[in-house]
Amino acid sequence: MDTDQITQLVVDIAKRARAASLELAALDTKTKNQFLNQLADKLVASTDAILAANALDLEAAKALELSGPMTERLTFTPERIATMAEGVRQVAALPDPVGVEIERLAPPKGFDLRKIRVPIGVIGIIYESRPNVTIDCAILCLKSGNASILRGGKEAFHSNMTLAEIIKEALQATGIHEDAVQFIPTTDRWALNVLLKQDDTIHCIIPRGGESLIRFTVENSRIPVIKHYTGVCSVYIDAAADPDMAEAILINSKCQRPSVCNAAENLIVHQDAAAQLPRLAKALHDHGVELRVDAHAKALLTASGLPLVDATAEDFATEYTDMIIAIGIVPDIKAAIELINANSSGHTECIVTEDAAAARQFLTSVDSAAVFHNASTRFSDGFEFGLGAEIGISTDRLHARGPMGLNELCTYKYVIHGTGETR
Amino acid sequence: MDTDQITQLVVDIAKRARAASLELAALDTKTKNQFLNQLADKLVASTDAILAANALDLEAAKALELSGPMTERLTFTPERIATMAEGVRQVAALPDPVGVEIERLAPPKGFDLRKIRVPIGVIGIIYESRPNVTIDCAILCLKSGNASILRGGKEAFHSNMTLAEIIKEALQATGIHEDAVQFIPTTDRWALNVLLKQDDTIHCIIPRGGESLIRFTVENSRIPVIKHYTGVCSVYIDAAADPDMAEAILINSKCQRPSVCNAAENLIVHQDAAAQLPRLAKALHDHGVELRVDAHAKALLTASGLPLVDATAEDFATEYTDMIIAIGIVPDIKAAIELINANSSGHTECIVTEDAAAARQFLTSVDSAAVFHNASTRFSDGFEFGLGAEIGISTDRLHARGPMGLNELCTYKYVIHGTGETR
Repeated sequence: MDTDQITQLVVDIAKRARAASLELAALDTKTKNQFLNQLADKLVASTDAILAANALDLEAAKALELSGPMTERLTFTPERIATMAEGVRQVAALPDPVGVEIERLAPPKGFDLRKIRVPIGVIGIIYESRPNVTIDCAILCLKSGNASILRGGKEAFHSNMTLAEIIKEALQATGIHEDAVQFIPTTDRWALNVLLKQDDTIHCIIPRGGESLIRFTVENSRIPVIKHYTGVCSVYIDAAADPDMAEAILINSKCQRPSVCNAAENLIVHQDAAAQLPRLAKALHDHGVELRVDAHAKALLTASGLPLVDATAEDFATEYTDMIIAIGIVPDIKAAIELINANSSGHTECIVTEDAAAARQFLTSVDSAAVFHNASTRFSDGFEFGLGAEIGISTDRLHARGPMGLNELCTYKYVIHGTGETR
Repeated sequence: MDTDQITQLVVDIAKRARAASLELAALDTKTKNQFLNQLADKLVASTDAILAANALDLEAAKALELSGPMTERLTFTPERIATMAEGVRQVAALPDPVGVEIERLAPPKGFDLRKIRVPIGVIGIIYESRPNVTIDCAILCLKSGNASILRGGKEAFHSNMTLAEIIKEALQATGIHEDAVQFIPTTDRWALNVLLKQDDTIHCIIPRGGESLIRFTVENSRIPVIKHYTGVCSVYIDAAADPDMAEAILINSKCQRPSVCNAAENLIVHQDAAAQLPRLAKALHDHGVELRVDAHAKALLTASGLPLVDATAEDFATEYTDMIIAIGIVPDIKAAIELINANSSGHTECIVTEDAAAARQFLTSVDSAAVFHNASTRFSDGFEFGLGAEIGISTDRLHARGPMGLNELCTYKYVIHGTGETR
């Protein structure tokens, strides 16, 4: 396809999605859930076809020289397909967010004024690598009454095309507008350029992927973007921290799953809790974590004999997603808050303390989406928050901040019932 | 100043605003209200200085050949300054939105999880013409705990600089960080280009002005933008409309203040209510409204002898902000909904009907920020909705839709209190 043909294709997809979205907004919960359950059945029934398409992607992955972890994330197995189908059934079981009354207002003139939750409209999702994102995003958008346009990466192209076909069959089988979920059938970069200019028909773009993809999206989009950037999360051990709790929360935050965005990357210790540092550092080391220390922390740990690396200023602003941690000592809680606000990605931070006033100060002044007092950063997650499912974790401030569930895929409208009121 | 100096200036303003915003987020309500009341006093006390600066702008307006209405909007009088000061006192009296618990969640692990309203951070406001916007935006941002960067138009430059000086005095007098409200002291277009790229320090841009300003902002901003586009609002007279109510709501929606964004631009009539059309058209004509009619409406009105203009398709998508209305006849409510969704700017629409099922269908399927049943579109306004004040009316869907009050100038954070929970 040449660029004119791709432009035509993407503009047409966006227009059809917009038309479908107007129908979807009024669709009943039962039909949406029928679709989801049908889709789950069809995914399991199509296991062989999905595996065959996935084999083509895995073959191509060798030529692309994908890393081991990336190839691993790309790989489907019958078990993973069954798990994906189970996830679809779980979304069917969640309450429908659409039509819910969010607030009843009290206008001076006394007419009936309510804020009602409604779908956003058309959502464009741009993602890389893992093909199960195709299903995750399609089902969350559909359950929340949104039409979706999916734009996956070239690594998973064959898998994605097969999943898109199965979604279309499930839409047809339940009588839902078949343009409600559309997959862009080309990985040409030009399609992305065109997509990001369709602000007449697409209402929101959610990029899920590496930093370069997100920067490209922000730079080129005329459509509002909800970003899911990195997670540079800190655990702060306050002067009044309980030592056992400090160790348990720190180790869980750093080591339970270091590759994810809510894992801790920094340990910040109040100088009055410096006596706790050797124990914390040893526990980290015993779990295989590399220790990158500032000058003060180095002085406190030299006697321990633990292997230490000098931390640079950038270390405190780096998402390692690996078994590495930056360690700094601060003179007081104010310095800890400043260090965090200067370096954090605004995702998740934690204070460990028995001092309620210190906790209050930290929770108020740390400017991140989720701020924890005496609990692991690993709980910063849609499922752990009880949202039922999440499409990602926003590091933006507008519209949605932190884990985004079905409610966050909606906007609202004001609905007024009057009796002939005029001004 | 050359472009390098302007770049330096704007980057510095944005950085200082970000630093101020971190202090503002924790500022108590009493201090914020002291600032507002001081500002109100100082505005009245500075009446002569404001009028003198305003005289310079009015003098320049002649050279700029500003239209009569634009010059009128630019003009301060002692009465208008007193009214502006009174508006500041009213915002002082509004409840503080910051720190309010929006929702208490029920996470599976049982820790205490609350969604707390917090300021967005740094808000950039780009506006034209009316200098009182400088005060309106500064006070609403400050009351909601946000630092603001104000970028007014060249028409009101002297007035704005004087108002900015008075704001700074009131900040100093109440001990608030003086970078909490900053006005960009140049009208060079380059400053706007630089401002829109400061996504590390500015969190939200609100453009208030004409369509070209808004398009420029959307096209060039890396920062999320909340748009305030046009209001192409429709009144739909259903088959089951009460004739007296239909006339009262139509005339009020169209004629009470035709220059504002919530005034009606289109009249759409169900063919089974066609008998009401001559009466409605006559009432519009008697109020001085020009009638632009589709072929069907023309046929129904020819016998009336009223002056008629043939409507084009674009007429139904035009914001006249004048005494002009487009009139169309539709075969059924579905056609009315489709006509509205195809032409509306998504601001405000109204159905007049005694049929509850028709009302429900309209309110569900019309995709606008505010949908009225049996009340005038003129109520689509922050004050009339009981929000206390508004910074504008969003025609966007993300974050805020419709009238934006203090709550809509805030985001939220998740605050968690645990007892040592780990995953």
